[in-house]
Amino acid sequence: MALDLPRGELSSEMEGYFAKCDEKIGYVPNVLASYAHDNAKLEAFAAMYNDLMLAPSGLSKLEREMIAVAVSSQNRCYYCLTAHGAAVRQLSGDPVLGELMVMNYRAAELSPRHRAMLDFAVKLTDTPWAIEEADRAALRSSGFGERDIWDIGAVAAFFNMSNRMASAVDMRPNPEYHGQAR
Amino acid sequence: MALDLPRGELSSEMEGYFAKCDEKIGYVPNVLASYAHDNAKLEAFAAMYNDLMLAPSGLSKLEREMIAVAVSSQNRCYYCLTAHGAAVRQLSGDPVLGELMVMNYRAAELSPRHRAMLDFAVKLTDTPWAIEEADRAALRSSGFGERDIWDIGAVAAFFNMSNRMASAVDMRPNPEYHGQAR
Amino acid sequence: MALDLPRGELSSEMEGYFAKCDEKIGYVPNVLASYAHDNAKLEAFAAMYNDLMLAPSGLSKLEREMIAVAVSSQNRCYYCLTAHGAAVRQLSGDPVLGELMVMNYRAAELSPRHRAMLDFAVKLTDTPWAIEEADRAALRSSGFGERDIWDIGAVAAFFNMSNRMASAVDMRPNPEYHGQAR
Amino acid sequence: MALDLPRGELSSEMEGYFAKCDEKIGYVPNVLASYAHDNAKLEAFAAMYNDLMLAPSGLSKLEREMIAVAVSSQNRCYYCLTAHGAAVRQLSGDPVLGELMVMNYRAAELSPRHRAMLDFAVKLTDTPWAIEEADRAALRSSGFGERDIWDIGAVAAFFNMSNRMASAVDMRPNPEYHGQAR
Amino acid sequence: MALDLPRGELSSEMEGYFAKCDEKIGYVPNVLASYAHDNAKLEAFAAMYNDLMLAPSGLSKLEREMIAVAVSSQNRCYYCLTAHGAAVRQLSGDPVLGELMVMNYRAAELSPRHRAMLDFAVKLTDTPWAIEEADRAALRSSGFGERDIWDIGAVAAFFNMSNRMASAVDMRPNPEYHGQAR
Amino acid sequence: MALDLPRGELSSEMEGYFAKCDEKIGYVPNVLASYAHDNAKLEAFAAMYNDLMLAPSGLSKLEREMIAVAVSSQNRCYYCLTAHGAAVRQLSGDPVLGELMVMNYRAAELSPRHRAMLDFAVKLTDTPWAIEEADRAALRSSGFGERDIWDIGAVAAFFNMSNRMASAVDMRPNPEYHGQAR
Repeated sequence: MALDLPRGELSSEMEGYFAKCDEKIGYVPNVLASYAHDNAKLEAFAAMYNDLMLAPSGLSKLEREMIAVAVSSQNRCYYCLTAHGAAVRQLSGDPVLGELMVMNYRAAELSPRHRAMLDFAVKLTDTPWAIEEADRAALRSSGFGERDIWDIGAVAAFFNMSNRMASAVDMRPNPEYHGQAR
Repeated sequence: MALDLPRGELSSEMEGYFAKCDEKIGYVPNVLASYAHDNAKLEAFAAMYNDLMLAPSGLSKLEREMIAVAVSSQNRCYYCLTAHGAAVRQLSGDPVLGELMVMNYRAAELSPRHRAMLDFAVKLTDTPWAIEEADRAALRSSGFGERDIWDIGAVAAFFNMSNRMASAVDMRPNPEYHGQAR
Repeated sequence: MALDLPRGELSSEMEGYFAKCDEKIGYVPNVLASYAHDNAKLEAFAAMYNDLMLAPSGLSKLEREMIAVAVSSQNRCYYCLTAHGAAVRQLSGDPVLGELMVMNYRAAELSPRHRAMLDFAVKLTDTPWAIEEADRAALRSSGFGERDIWDIGAVAAFFNMSNRMASAVDMRPNPEYHGQAR
Repeated sequence: MALDLPRGELSSEMEGYFAKCDEKIGYVPNVLASYAHDNAKLEAFAAMYNDLMLAPSGLSKLEREMIAVAVSSQNRCYYCLTAHGAAVRQLSGDPVLGELMVMNYRAAELSPRHRAMLDFAVKLTDTPWAIEEADRAALRSSGFGERDIWDIGAVAAFFNMSNRMASAVDMRPNPEYHGQAR
Repeated sequence: MALDLPRGELSSEMEGYFAKCDEKIGYVPNVLASYAHDNAKLEAFAAMYNDLMLAPSGLSKLEREMIAVAVSSQNRCYYCLTAHGAAVRQLSGDPVLGELMVMNYRAAELSPRHRAMLDFAVKLTDTPWAIEEADRAALRSSGFGERDIWDIGAVAAFFNMSNRMASAVDMRPNPEYHGQAR
Repeated sequence: MALDLPRGELSSEMEGYFAKCDEKIGYVPNVLASYAHDNAKLEAFAAMYNDLMLAPSGLSKLEREMIAVAVSSQNRCYYCLTAHGAAVRQLSGDPVLGELMVMNYRAAELSPRHRAMLDFAVKLTDTPWAIEEADRAALRSSGFGERDIWDIGAVAAFFNMSNRMASAVDMRPNPEYHGQAR
């Protein structure tokens, strides 16, 4: 049972954002609905999320979604695995890749670049205290630049937050995700 | 060695924010400096952080800082333990409380309210997949309301992000924190 | 890359079994193909598997598949999660239930019977040394009889074997499973 | 207290198997007695066990027993450590080797072949999701062939099943094992 | 390969102690021989050990040895499991009890007193940070007094030291232990 | 609430030791006070402690204190982190080094010698069963001799004891430590 927080008054910007969601994808993702009890929190979350996942980056949008799912798999987050698993399937056009990110990224036959990226993200998730210069060096020798390292770290770190937010308040994914891009 | 990302062009709002830091506390916290390579990321981080830690809440500012440190202790984050350990010492006027949050919150002689709050935050940190309705019920029976549960979850989740961001790019705390409020 | 073991000579019974698979479901499950390098091993595996999953039991076939997937999720077994996740979707007619067993069975809204059954199976998977009389007592008070306890233990134990066999030789699921019963 | 399942009707083959146990070693191993509530389950278990531990293989019988004990040590299975610890003592004529497999295989002064074999078996036991091609390559460079890798994996996987079956129903080893081959 | 430290000059008291060992049990335990590179360290170790295991206490000598073995099992210490496993067999006259302490103390059918004692010792070994007043209260309600709690803690703590000392320098048990009191 | 054990009769040597503490540092460390219920235990503890931390060694006193704190951080021991954190600050004249040992030794910019020393001590703390010849070889190639290896092991092992003794009886650090050498 999710928390029962009444919807707060939203800014026109946020009302517009929700309307655009409805129009473009047919629903408001439940994570946004769950933040809607407080406009300031919703705006901060949306700003960070949209910058992280959609702004220009040395990482493609698919790569960012792959990190999201591999991290969420470590934390066994039902909400994020469902929503971002669908995103991997959609962006890659490869339904099996989405499943592999959910189940065990080590079983996927990844390029060395993607393997290094996910190894870093998963180590950062499981034993953040053990991340050291050698881990950044491994990313550099797989072709990632300084800003790319920031972005890998930032996406992995963000989903360590949102996985826990989803668990804390028992967010439930919109049912539409399950069948997408199978 | 931290990442070497050149400072980006900051909005006047962010320049003002940095100036205010310098004026009020004598330095810009290194976490903000580290986000300054990209104005959008800095703004999103600052908005979320300030809402979370400073906006009105059923949790006092000290309680939010206690969660920050207890979570950072599980993740052994040098940056956050240093900066927020100082904040606990300052806000509580009790230097020993700051040490206890860093070392082992279970050794502190806490009120039942604070113990329940930190047990939830630490379980959410270590085994987020195992948080269930019974964990929320334990908060409720310690006197926390629905919005308080959101806030406990949100602070704990946020530091699970920032602990990992600090590890990913090797953020180093400003030296001023160490001696504060001893 | 899976092991490269040439197919052995199969008994007519096993040839018939493979033919029946082809006829009824359109393919031979890769786990069986992988045992086909040695007829004795294939026969022993098939006999144990078919008794366990298909013979009369106080557990329904769906319940046995739910255990299979919850156990395989702990062991992050790509093969078994894929094949038995499909079985849960098919037998339950509930695609979301299959996803929940893969991602985090604790997030499913299960009957007390099913929750007790999976709690036992997952504890037996993760900390078998800690299973004691109290764990069996919990099953009894959820309505399970002695033989049911055997069967829950046996299915959970079996998938702890087959998860590891799949990992040891890198079994790959037949592609047909992914889209089934979505 | 073990499960209380009345003995089922056994096939003449299984009756003969039990009689042969009594004749050759003086008792029926309790694991077989515990499966005797259901003839089909007993036959399937016995067929798999006997093929695995006694059929021709690139692994000697002692090597298979060493794997059995090293795996059972990870899972702290009283039944299997007792029964198969005795087997290692008997087959090796080295009582200390049996103790080392029970206590900590890393403390034994093993040949590189045996160390590689047990490292694989124990990793497969503890973190099956992390077994990858590099682990198989390590076995190959220690002189193991493809079929040997199968057999190492199969023995390790089997004892991950039987350790858990023993825990699930609280199997107790026959007292005869304790003093054997000391 | 153990450390290669030449024997130091021993005090006449320590020479006498070694001679008494030779006379009474036929050998000097290797742990003492390994400390003999430095007389001061040997004396300190022997004084602490003898007080702990032999001085008057509310715990019987057997109970102290049971703790020693249960703790050493968690740390998988070959030396201590061998030497103190023999002591449990000898003091109890029950060879199986010694095996159970080595393999899995939870599988032993212990009195509530002994179970509480070992639960405390093992929790103190595995998660010392989580020992709290409730754990001491559980000992009290099993009939242990304040000094008994000290002694349980002291024996468990001591073997957490000696297990690690044995691992650090690779101590090897005297061969005599293996066959004792089988 | 610590154990309530009345003070025993102390030898004149121990009375003198306590008096010297009072005179030189202004208080008797609470760990000594807690052993004072039994003179023999106090003498044994003091003899071992003083030899270990103060006697001539290839390790400096600061190095021994660094090991003490890094080990105590793994075990989250409030008493030892407080008392020995202060010692690191004092002996090094570097308050930040004390904090780093408490929080995460990996974040300190250590010499290769110190890093190797602490890596060994922490591995010995967390997974003593996995310490092998290769770990000692790593110390040797960082310049440590055989006796140095003994001393690193001995200090790390000792604090694994005293951390647990402090947890078992809930020792509380003297308040003087908190502000020392900030």
